[in-house]
Amino acid sequence: MKVAIIGAGALGLYYGAMLQRSGVDVRFLLRRDYQAIAEGGLTVTSTAGDFHLPDVQGFRTSAEIGDVDLVIVGLKTFANAHLVEMLRPLMTGETAVLTLQNGLGNEELLAEAFGAERVLGGVAFLCSNRGAPGTVHHLGQGPIRLGEFAGGPSDRARTIAEMFIRAQVQCEAVDDLVKARWEKLVWNIPFNGLCALTGKPTDALLGHPATRRQVIELMTEVVAGANAQHLSRPIDGEPFIARMIELTEGMGPYRPSMMIDRLEGRPLELEAIYGIPLHQAALRGRSMPRVELLHALLELGEAR
Amino acid sequence: MKVAIIGAGALGLYYGAMLQRSGVDVRFLLRRDYQAIAEGGLTVTSTAGDFHLPDVQGFRTSAEIGDVDLVIVGLKTFANAHLVEMLRPLMTGETAVLTLQNGLGNEELLAEAFGAERVLGGVAFLCSNRGAPGTVHHLGQGPIRLGEFAGGPSDRARTIAEMFIRAQVQCEAVDDLVKARWEKLVWNIPFNGLCALTGKPTDALLGHPATRRQVIELMTEVVAGANAQHLSRPIDGEPFIARMIELTEGMGPYRPSMMIDRLEGRPLELEAIYGIPLHQAALRGRSMPRVELLHALLELGEAR
Repeated sequence: MKVAIIGAGALGLYYGAMLQRSGVDVRFLLRRDYQAIAEGGLTVTSTAGDFHLPDVQGFRTSAEIGDVDLVIVGLKTFANAHLVEMLRPLMTGETAVLTLQNGLGNEELLAEAFGAERVLGGVAFLCSNRGAPGTVHHLGQGPIRLGEFAGGPSDRARTIAEMFIRAQVQCEAVDDLVKARWEKLVWNIPFNGLCALTGKPTDALLGHPATRRQVIELMTEVVAGANAQHLSRPIDGEPFIARMIELTEGMGPYRPSMMIDRLEGRPLELEAIYGIPLHQAALRGRSMPRVELLHALLELGEAR
Repeated sequence: MKVAIIGAGALGLYYGAMLQRSGVDVRFLLRRDYQAIAEGGLTVTSTAGDFHLPDVQGFRTSAEIGDVDLVIVGLKTFANAHLVEMLRPLMTGETAVLTLQNGLGNEELLAEAFGAERVLGGVAFLCSNRGAPGTVHHLGQGPIRLGEFAGGPSDRARTIAEMFIRAQVQCEAVDDLVKARWEKLVWNIPFNGLCALTGKPTDALLGHPATRRQVIELMTEVVAGANAQHLSRPIDGEPFIARMIELTEGMGPYRPSMMIDRLEGRPLELEAIYGIPLHQAALRGRSMPRVELLHALLELGEAR
């Protein structure tokens, strides 16, 4: 399988490196890291063992990459205006596109451009960040849950999941991608936003009774928004939220990606994580008042 | 009428000075300003004309002040734990207490200590701050709406209102103090908290569409909370909120007291402006979800 990685940040570099190490033909679209990788290859540091790939197929344009069987998209969603044009040269009549981007709206964008039948999506539970050019640090986790944009079981989703599993990335093909996306939002919506807004890591929010309660209230709003979306089975709110809280407590003073984005002055992925979910919930008659307020406060911080 | 001013911050010093200038026998309980006022009197700078009071009756303890006819309370509510003991030496069988403090819960505290029939409350629309010791700056506004804690019309409330009017302070006696207090909360709850949290003045919040909408949503929650309190007449939400927004737009880049308190590292009046109103609304079956989230975020900022 010939795979292109579009959006080679921490997520794209890490998964691409794991796939290449397992024998997959991986081609990276690179910008910041092009020179370093051309000269010295790609290094992954990881608690599971560091490794180095001396020969990496890096390209400056997707036209140079040419046709592939699978495109994996790891672009930050605030760059989505350029996504379709970046992908066009890679697409044959058979190419599948898997977006591992955050939040909602990414599959829809790709489906509109290339047809719904070409599109898969996945949620990645990965903790990684970029080091010096040519280096990516894998700090922990990494499972992926992926499925067809059109929904339902598919051989293609299972084949891609098996490719990841052979590359030692935990991966599960799911029949209900919408549910998987919303389940991740139950975590992302409170913690990404509250940490970015307050500048405090997850344990500070959970350690203070009033904000801990608001985390749970925000999660409860998101579960209700999710369960209005005609999921295959509703999210069972109370136990699911209790598990999310427990998991987060195990993470210690974790700084979500949006908090790091804000601290480092990058734009935030507000549309994908807040704007579109709020809109999707509203379309089904569900308001998420606390989520709305949090979104507005984050937006205000962007207006600089 | 012999009047004691307890809590001689910007509000207490300003109203006390206006009353003394009009001929009222005013006694101030002073701490920070004691020495300066004993030596050089009290100076008010104001757009309506500066004035100086060379002889001011300042005291270090309320025992030295002794009996008075009226106590006016301007203490910050976070110091309320000391309020009753500060007032006890001033009280005869006839002394009335008027609290001009922010938010809810102040009249209840005084009523429990001294009897409901002794207590009046008022909301002050004053923009003032302290200058060097012995100086208070009046920046604008100043009207007071006051009424009996027990509710209903009263000669006493009208007499006090007339005293303020003779002192050139706009004042109105109202029959429904609870309504007056909640009407002020419709402004205070969104603007005090959002400005303190974001560090941005009122015009920044109104100039950004998403936060402007959340200001209105917060006001709508507070109006619903207010109208669950058995008011004499409900607050007519839409026109009232429209008027608040218009008024605030006229104020330019205004920095509410809570924003200044946070910028200067002082504690915030969270119980009076958020905690007790949330509790009062909940007692009547009204949740105010956005207000809850805002309260929690402000509380988190206090936990330093």
